[in-house]
Amino acid sequence: MNQEKELIENGVVVISGDAIEAVGGPELLERYQANEVIDGQGGILMPGMVNTHTHAAMVVFRSLGDDLPDRLKRYILPLEKKLVDQNLVALGSKYAIAEMLASGVTTFADMYYFEDEVAKAAKEMGIRAVLGETVVDFPSPDSKEAYGGLAYAEQFIEKWHEDDLITPAIAPHAPYTNDSMHLKKAAALSEKYDVPMIMHVAEMDDEVQKYKTEYNMTPVQYLDSLGVLNDRFIAAHLIYVSMEDLDILEKRQIGIAHNIGANAKAGKGVPPLKEMVKRKMKVGLGSDGPMSGNTLDIITQMSLVAKIHKLFNRDRTLFPAMDILEMATIGGARALNLDKLIGSIEPSKKADLVILETSSVNMQPIYDYYATIVYAANASNVDTVIVNGKVLLRNKCFTKFDFSKTREELMVLSKEIKTMIS
Amino acid sequence: MNQEKELIENGVVVISGDAIEAVGGPELLERYQANEVIDGQGGILMPGMVNTHTHAAMVVFRSLGDDLPDRLKRYILPLEKKLVDQNLVALGSKYAIAEMLASGVTTFADMYYFEDEVAKAAKEMGIRAVLGETVVDFPSPDSKEAYGGLAYAEQFIEKWHEDDLITPAIAPHAPYTNDSMHLKKAAALSEKYDVPMIMHVAEMDDEVQKYKTEYNMTPVQYLDSLGVLNDRFIAAHLIYVSMEDLDILEKRQIGIAHNIGANAKAGKGVPPLKEMVKRKMKVGLGSDGPMSGNTLDIITQMSLVAKIHKLFNRDRTLFPAMDILEMATIGGARALNLDKLIGSIEPSKKADLVILETSSVNMQPIYDYYATIVYAANASNVDTVIVNGKVLLRNKCFTKFDFSKTREELMVLSKEIKTMIS
Ligand SMILES: [Zn+2]
Ligand SMILES: [Zn+2]
Repeated sequence: MNQEKELIENGVVVISGDAIEAVGGPELLERYQANEVIDGQGGILMPGMVNTHTHAAMVVFRSLGDDLPDRLKRYILPLEKKLVDQNLVALGSKYAIAEMLASGVTTFADMYYFEDEVAKAAKEMGIRAVLGETVVDFPSPDSKEAYGGLAYAEQFIEKWHEDDLITPAIAPHAPYTNDSMHLKKAAALSEKYDVPMIMHVAEMDDEVQKYKTEYNMTPVQYLDSLGVLNDRFIAAHLIYVSMEDLDILEKRQIGIAHNIGANAKAGKGVPPLKEMVKRKMKVGLGSDGPMSGNTLDIITQMSLVAKIHKLFNRDRTLFPAMDILEMATIGGARALNLDKLIGSIEPSKKADLVILETSSVNMQPIYDYYATIVYAANASNVDTVIVNGKVLLRNKCFTKFDFSKTREELMVLSKEIKTMIS
Repeated sequence: MNQEKELIENGVVVISGDAIEAVGGPELLERYQANEVIDGQGGILMPGMVNTHTHAAMVVFRSLGDDLPDRLKRYILPLEKKLVDQNLVALGSKYAIAEMLASGVTTFADMYYFEDEVAKAAKEMGIRAVLGETVVDFPSPDSKEAYGGLAYAEQFIEKWHEDDLITPAIAPHAPYTNDSMHLKKAAALSEKYDVPMIMHVAEMDDEVQKYKTEYNMTPVQYLDSLGVLNDRFIAAHLIYVSMEDLDILEKRQIGIAHNIGANAKAGKGVPPLKEMVKRKMKVGLGSDGPMSGNTLDIITQMSLVAKIHKLFNRDRTLFPAMDILEMATIGGARALNLDKLIGSIEPSKKADLVILETSSVNMQPIYDYYATIVYAANASNVDTVIVNGKVLLRNKCFTKFDFSKTREELMVLSKEIKTMIS
């Protein structure tokens, strides 16, 4: 995923500390003296994947209320009100991070409550993360007052903004759950600390309707009129956007989290991805929260992105596998403004790497590595995961993290929730 | 997947010989004396999945020429002409059957050349199969003359039509690769032996155009005018069909193999699945060949079917997970006219069963078993597979089949092919 999109057979990557020291062929094995040599065993070494949008802790509620029209009001909001606290977020985040790491996600962008808990879990487990504290115009699990997220966010940003793995951020939930004054305050905070501002934008039918009726604008035009769009802004979804909206978004250099799996499952619509990519906008892939997208891996998303956009455009040649892998790695890094650090395997970049094994039945034969990754691989083919130079997964097992303990805790909690809702 | 769509917690299934003897709760453990007890360990026991349409041996060419506009003429046809022989079909089929079994497919419907080799591989490995020998109006790998498949098919049907696992069939490739006389001959053979007739129907733009121009008919109307549509007929794809076509197909009680993944990847179009299911037509899911769909499992297809149709219909409630699982199991059995034998877990049905483990990170929590299977599971979560009462996969490993040997052979062959095309 470097500029030349080089593909090296029998490649060798030298890691020193948290960074990549050298990339090349087998000759590097002689040039460097290594403390540890990891044999890829015929697997595919690729950049770690970037999940540009999720609500990790919501994994606690996964598979609850799928396919129901009223799930938001019937399940999500009441459950969040009743149940979401620091402990739930800490546990849910740990579980979700385990799922992401095990599936080759080395960086994720999150938006939820109690993001300090998410940061602690991410730091402990060693994953890279952009974490946006949610701001909404109603009382939320971590704030008795509307817009309490703003104060939480500032403290949170102060605490983490010099961390090497964690990028703290502010995340007004959506245009329609924040008034203009607070959106501007959030943007000011983002500017003050030079941290991302994350938001759901142009995701809902009625969102579009609202801004049409009230301002005769699109949601994007509305946000731009407030002056909150810039290159620190990360927009999730962008389903209902016009070409004029894209003109604005392109000019403001915003990052885009494309969540096709969740969008499709909710029957919402298809973002104009072809046009976004044509304009070389900063597009990455996202799973959305596990109540919407059910899995947190990016391999599943790659296949969906390719298939759904080929289908909608009636064009089998659209988004060849290499372009899709680009979105999943360096594209995601660009969307999060981390592309100087991660997203490709190049000297001086951070060592965020994944090995896919090719011994499983679905992984052979391989005439084209990109097609194999995008069309044949699944999350379980991830064998080895390295983040910031640390080996976190080996032979599909966590090197340090006690997954069975977290799994046990999640099952106890989900049993309680089951009793509660039945 | 019985009539009542019963879901049994802590269920027990008693198998005797090749069939299911009893289904119930833990009390069955006391009522029956078993030679062997398989503990599901908290997994999900479900009916084996049915892959209603593939070209298994083409797995040899998987990942070759994906995303290219001219792949059929540039790769598939020349490679088939040059390479496809009995040995390639035998090896490719074995490899593909391994992939299907490992992913919980217990029955598949195939359409290719040298189907006798596919039958031998299926029989040896213990999978259930409906195998259609291809008939085309040009010389093919197993026939120097056009329509040689007809003679091959008759011999093949004679040989296998009393087998307990193999249902031989005849498979005219498509309306446009067979003339009306030979289509009628194929239908006569299907009638004579009471075996299925499998065909790609209404899959291509230019197919529709051709019958419009030449007969002022749709492909379906054309086939019906020949009198070849009946309840033994299995149609793959059916992308370009009108409501009038569906009237015909419903009346003729044909089986439908819905291959959304392959259709999407090729940018072809979306079959009117909602209408098909509303009419209670016999709809099953298919992967299509591994050069089109890349994976042979049905779990991947389930998620795609749900997402793509919800998206196209802008309806999140369309095809709830239970309906999707129905298509993957009993629906597929209906499409292949095997629903008296398989497709559900009921006494007297054949013991074709799958256990999904729920210990992997993506499989928890479970508030809804159907949603977990359809939206969260992947092919690698399949732990145990039983076909016709025989345990073929345990703890994700084949009990008898030497997969590493077949894999080795496939890698040797694919290396040769790589040299040949480069
Ligand atoms: Zn979201
Ligand atoms: Zn086909």
